[in-house]
Amino acid sequence: MARLAARSRRPPLLGLLTAVPLLAAVALLAIVALPAAALGQPADPLPSWREGAVKRALVDFVGRVTREGGPDFVPLAERVAVFDNDGTLWTEQPVYVQAAFALDRIRALAPEHPEWTHTQPFRGVIEGDGHAVAAAGEKGVVQILAATHAGMTTDAFGQLVGDWLQTARHPRFDRPYDTLVYQPMLELLGHLRASGFKTFIVSGGGAEFMRVFAERAYGIPPEQAVGSSGATRFEAKAGGMPALVKEPTIEFVDDGPGKPSGINRFIGRRPILAFGNSDGDLQMLEWTAGGAGPRFLGLVQHTDAEREYAYDRQSRVGRLDRALDEAAGRGWSIVDMSRDWAVIFPPVPGGER
Amino acid sequence: MARLAARSRRPPLLGLLTAVPLLAAVALLAIVALPAAALGQPADPLPSWREGAVKRALVDFVGRVTREGGPDFVPLAERVAVFDNDGTLWTEQPVYVQAAFALDRIRALAPEHPEWTHTQPFRGVIEGDGHAVAAAGEKGVVQILAATHAGMTTDAFGQLVGDWLQTARHPRFDRPYDTLVYQPMLELLGHLRASGFKTFIVSGGGAEFMRVFAERAYGIPPEQAVGSSGATRFEAKAGGMPALVKEPTIEFVDDGPGKPSGINRFIGRRPILAFGNSDGDLQMLEWTAGGAGPRFLGLVQHTDAEREYAYDRQSRVGRLDRALDEAAGRGWSIVDMSRDWAVIFPPVPGGER
Repeated sequence: MARLAARSRRPPLLGLLTAVPLLAAVALLAIVALPAAALGQPADPLPSWREGAVKRALVDFVGRVTREGGPDFVPLAERVAVFDNDGTLWTEQPVYVQAAFALDRIRALAPEHPEWTHTQPFRGVIEGDGHAVAAAGEKGVVQILAATHAGMTTDAFGQLVGDWLQTARHPRFDRPYDTLVYQPMLELLGHLRASGFKTFIVSGGGAEFMRVFAERAYGIPPEQAVGSSGATRFEAKAGGMPALVKEPTIEFVDDGPGKPSGINRFIGRRPILAFGNSDGDLQMLEWTAGGAGPRFLGLVQHTDAEREYAYDRQSRVGRLDRALDEAAGRGWSIVDMSRDWAVIFPPVPGGER
Repeated sequence: MARLAARSRRPPLLGLLTAVPLLAAVALLAIVALPAAALGQPADPLPSWREGAVKRALVDFVGRVTREGGPDFVPLAERVAVFDNDGTLWTEQPVYVQAAFALDRIRALAPEHPEWTHTQPFRGVIEGDGHAVAAAGEKGVVQILAATHAGMTTDAFGQLVGDWLQTARHPRFDRPYDTLVYQPMLELLGHLRASGFKTFIVSGGGAEFMRVFAERAYGIPPEQAVGSSGATRFEAKAGGMPALVKEPTIEFVDDGPGKPSGINRFIGRRPILAFGNSDGDLQMLEWTAGGAGPRFLGLVQHTDAEREYAYDRQSRVGRLDRALDEAAGRGWSIVDMSRDWAVIFPPVPGGER
């Protein structure tokens, strides 16, 4: 359907070409080859989105809320857009990127922890025994987080994550994780910002983890990356530099019903656009939808096993079930990745890093 | 000293005037009377600051960090400035404004709570018995906060605070509280923003309380107002509008050593300029000072009993003791309100509201 729409604009031009002399045709071809912007028409702000209902709804929404004097105009200060991160802005399969970092980190630290060879969940991580790790349950997750995300300064943690992103590669795509971001979403973030929106991440992942790459990868500054967080302890040693030390205490879980709380706490204003991809984003979309005035609610549905992954109702990571039903019932936009996105990932910058 | 410096620039001009013919002198006077900007000189960005060491240090700092190619140049993204609120941006005497709100709210709610006439700390509030309120200690404070800041939606709370600010008046100045902001600090905030800084509040006060007026009063948007916060609970009633309900649980205290944690959590980047006025700001200043590169650290010392208040080491509200010693020892800038500020408050907008 998207391709038909794109084609349907060409026939009149072709018909015109056969009816005019050769030189004029050549001149006309030159004009046709010019980018739309050079002809005074606005360039397509979302070139990686195929024509279709979702792209139309997005472009229409941004047009309406920015049209001064129009019935749906929204003042600059209220143009707040929130995006989930994992599965909405970048790939979350086969495991969340932050989990891949934590598991690599356990393996790197193992030589300093001989006791891990006979303690779960560490032994399972070291031996690649997923069942043993899963069997350790939530307690195991907390132990892994404590061992990999605490007991160091915030500066040291940022350095560790940055170094890891430089060397780690996604197991299937063999690319740095922070290049596995969705090109259509980068274009949407850019179009929103060019239209006066402030763009925020509101993720269940760790805020300090995301902040290492969010500005470079998405153009989103640290203070606009909202996420889960652990406690920190301020240490001012006499004569030394003060430090913030990461503690093994989880302070705030920014997921599910925590997302509206996180929005309230960090942003302090109700968004008018929200994008997610899983049931953990449902309450964020409900909260965004609940305000007065124009709203855009979107879900990314992963339908492209060939170019990325295909998963929804049954998935362990990024399950999309209740939110899909609610989106259908309330007329929210559902991105069918395979149909709506002409491109999934941007090219790897410089071929390699 | 500040006035001497201002005077010392005039004598040469006066000397010049006596040496030239009358017409030329009149022409010269006309030029002298023109604002600096009209002569191509930059206008004074801080007109309410008297000439002196603090003003010089501020203007010099902003000049250095924004001079491209200079040794102290700081890229746009890293120009983060943090300000305490109570006593640094607005008046905190005789009680914190948020406390005045809470006490007024208790009195307004009293008819619905007959039991308060025989329960402390409520009885003390209703009868204006400060000793009884103080005797209830921290537990009393939490009870007052729970009764006035919880059990309602976030939207309803914002409305209550907004309504209160419209009608409440400061007991001494008889003006709306949110007009008792410091004109010199408004100019500093504006100068910093015009120089590419992001300006944040980092306050021990409640974030949701400040956000009601911070944008109007200081030009600081909600997501740049960091403060203490209570928990919120998301409620999505079938068929109804979703709501965020404020809970009586204090979630985060953004004061003292909590300020660096709050900066890490909400801003995610170390500031290069920090301003406070009390010992509760000491760790924020230490944390800011601890980074590499140019830094500005400032403390407002309340020395002006006539135009505002005079208090420091012995004060119950806004005690400035340890931080004053550390500022002196480390060469941080200390604003002597009575000496450094030509104006304290802006005129009341429209005379009344």
